[in-house]
Amino acid sequence: MKRKINFNAGPATLPEPVLQELAKATLQYGKTGTSVLELQHRGSAFGEILEECNALVHELCGIGPEYEVIWLHGGGRLQFCMIPMNFLPEGKVAAYIDSGQWAHEAMQYAAYYGDTKIVASSRESGYAHLPQWPARLPAKAAYLHLTTNNTIYGTQWHDIPACSKPLIADMSSDILSRRHDHSRYAMFYAAAQKNLGVPGVALAVVHKDMLRKAARPLPPMLSYKAQAAERSVVNTANVPGIYTALLMLRWTKQRGIAAIEKENTAKAELLYGQLDKSRIFVPRVSEKAHRSQMNVCFTTNDMAHEQPFLDMCARHNIIGIKGHRYTGGFRVSMYNAVSLADVAALVDVMREFEDLSPSPLLRRGR
Amino acid sequence: MKRKINFNAGPATLPEPVLQELAKATLQYGKTGTSVLELQHRGSAFGEILEECNALVHELCGIGPEYEVIWLHGGGRLQFCMIPMNFLPEGKVAAYIDSGQWAHEAMQYAAYYGDTKIVASSRESGYAHLPQWPARLPAKAAYLHLTTNNTIYGTQWHDIPACSKPLIADMSSDILSRRHDHSRYAMFYAAAQKNLGVPGVALAVVHKDMLRKAARPLPPMLSYKAQAAERSVVNTANVPGIYTALLMLRWTKQRGIAAIEKENTAKAELLYGQLDKSRIFVPRVSEKAHRSQMNVCFTTNDMAHEQPFLDMCARHNIIGIKGHRYTGGFRVSMYNAVSLADVAALVDVMREFEDLSPSPLLRRGR
Repeated sequence: MKRKINFNAGPATLPEPVLQELAKATLQYGKTGTSVLELQHRGSAFGEILEECNALVHELCGIGPEYEVIWLHGGGRLQFCMIPMNFLPEGKVAAYIDSGQWAHEAMQYAAYYGDTKIVASSRESGYAHLPQWPARLPAKAAYLHLTTNNTIYGTQWHDIPACSKPLIADMSSDILSRRHDHSRYAMFYAAAQKNLGVPGVALAVVHKDMLRKAARPLPPMLSYKAQAAERSVVNTANVPGIYTALLMLRWTKQRGIAAIEKENTAKAELLYGQLDKSRIFVPRVSEKAHRSQMNVCFTTNDMAHEQPFLDMCARHNIIGIKGHRYTGGFRVSMYNAVSLADVAALVDVMREFEDLSPSPLLRRGR
Repeated sequence: MKRKINFNAGPATLPEPVLQELAKATLQYGKTGTSVLELQHRGSAFGEILEECNALVHELCGIGPEYEVIWLHGGGRLQFCMIPMNFLPEGKVAAYIDSGQWAHEAMQYAAYYGDTKIVASSRESGYAHLPQWPARLPAKAAYLHLTTNNTIYGTQWHDIPACSKPLIADMSSDILSRRHDHSRYAMFYAAAQKNLGVPGVALAVVHKDMLRKAARPLPPMLSYKAQAAERSVVNTANVPGIYTALLMLRWTKQRGIAAIEKENTAKAELLYGQLDKSRIFVPRVSEKAHRSQMNVCFTTNDMAHEQPFLDMCARHNIIGIKGHRYTGGFRVSMYNAVSLADVAALVDVMREFEDLSPSPLLRRGR
């Protein structure tokens, strides 16, 4: 069966060379006589995998030794728990920018562990644009939490204003997608199933200053400090998931962040360009400066178009463009492993669909 | 490179047919046109994987619909956290049987969330035998926690006495290794990297009565009740890890639990038999009724034998027999994927090693 052009939001499509390498390592890892799935988490082969992962994160994010790179189990939601557990002490408040569903849930999770405050929100307008950056933060704010890209609604922070408090960013859906000044963050993190591989792994990069703070006593499994001290092996690490992350990091380095950014920009220009001139498709985010390069969300001017368009895409080998259950419509996720050619194929189908659809005047005349 | 005979304690060796199926699915899953790593966690293909996993756990453990099968991220240690979070309310005490390092750590983790009590322990004697089963439990005990098999020390509970409180068992290293009455447990759980596949996944089987209790408000990610209600997809599930568990469950069913138990018994008899008649190797656990069929731990009567024996094993393609860093010596883990022939190969090397070693009398004469 021919490989699909896959625009799913996550678990996302992976580069074919990564899948091939992984299939090979599943049968045998190097000359170990064992599968990569059987590598010992405290053994030298996996130690080298971890070290290379850590070095590549430092290099690709342009950060220095003042940051600890930690590989954790679970996805973004376990981080939603661990962030307030670790960094929200009694007497302080956690500030959240409410720019989408995940940003909102991150705040809801934190509320189990202490005081929270939404300092900016676009919830009332259905997250169709980014909220205004907060003019000031509570004096007692322990940190400000930001979701850099909002997958469900297709918005993304391109310019991030200054912040007077430790800034913690969920980059699950746009990490390594662009040149970015990561040194501005006290912590950034990402679930792996978009630009970093497969679900079951999360990357957390934490400034060492943050690790000196301890909001409450925590078992080592849930403590960033303990996880950093144990070099991500407090317990049996997700060996195959972290190896997949290594393959993704190598693939990312081979292409280079600047080249990836360039292609991501070209992909976004092509698709938004088509949406902006379409007489059928309607982009969700009208404010161009707020548009995500990772997830492009749109609807049609007539619900009756939806199923025929999905069907036409399927006939052209294209999957994964249904919008999130919260929004309906369409969402095209264009993470790093989606090529410009993939997006061009979709745009061709959109054009064909428009050409075949009767013009609004003709339809009105029926 | 020839596949090694691998006695590692976990991540453990996996059956070759499982690895082959997984490698194939890494390139393409069925006729989906995508890799299994790219399946959507809320899509129908993964839904079928989860349902089959759940049905197989019910069938292989012989439990009814009164149990919820939940697939979680992380390993045993995240369960060490979640068990007291969910089941240890204020005013109650969590009772722990301290039969080894993991049993002890489970208790230490629980102490972050409430009162704990060790009701039986063999720590003082280096966990070389099982502790006496507690004659009674505290009236305020919310549950009794038991580790059914102690990997580091090579002890295993074969007969589990009656228990007046909800019994929660960590079966990480012996699940599905024997016929066993699982209906005695309020909950049992296992990290997957031994008899269930790869690290990064944990199986928790919880009696529905337990889910009606809620020790404290918890974010859905850390709540068994929410995880059960959301059918293990509160967040993006570990799709490849759970698919690997399905392959292991199918392989287990194909062999049958009774046949697996029979082979595990034969493996243990062969290896302990050799140890009991050896003049060089010394089994750690002298009490035969306490011996583990999963992890056989032993030392030598002279430390000088250790490296030469390891080297001889390596020459015979055998790996993974070094003891845990806490105990030293040797540990041979014989999970379900280790065959009787694998153990026979090791026993042959042990015999050869003994034959080549000078007898104690001769050595004394040097």
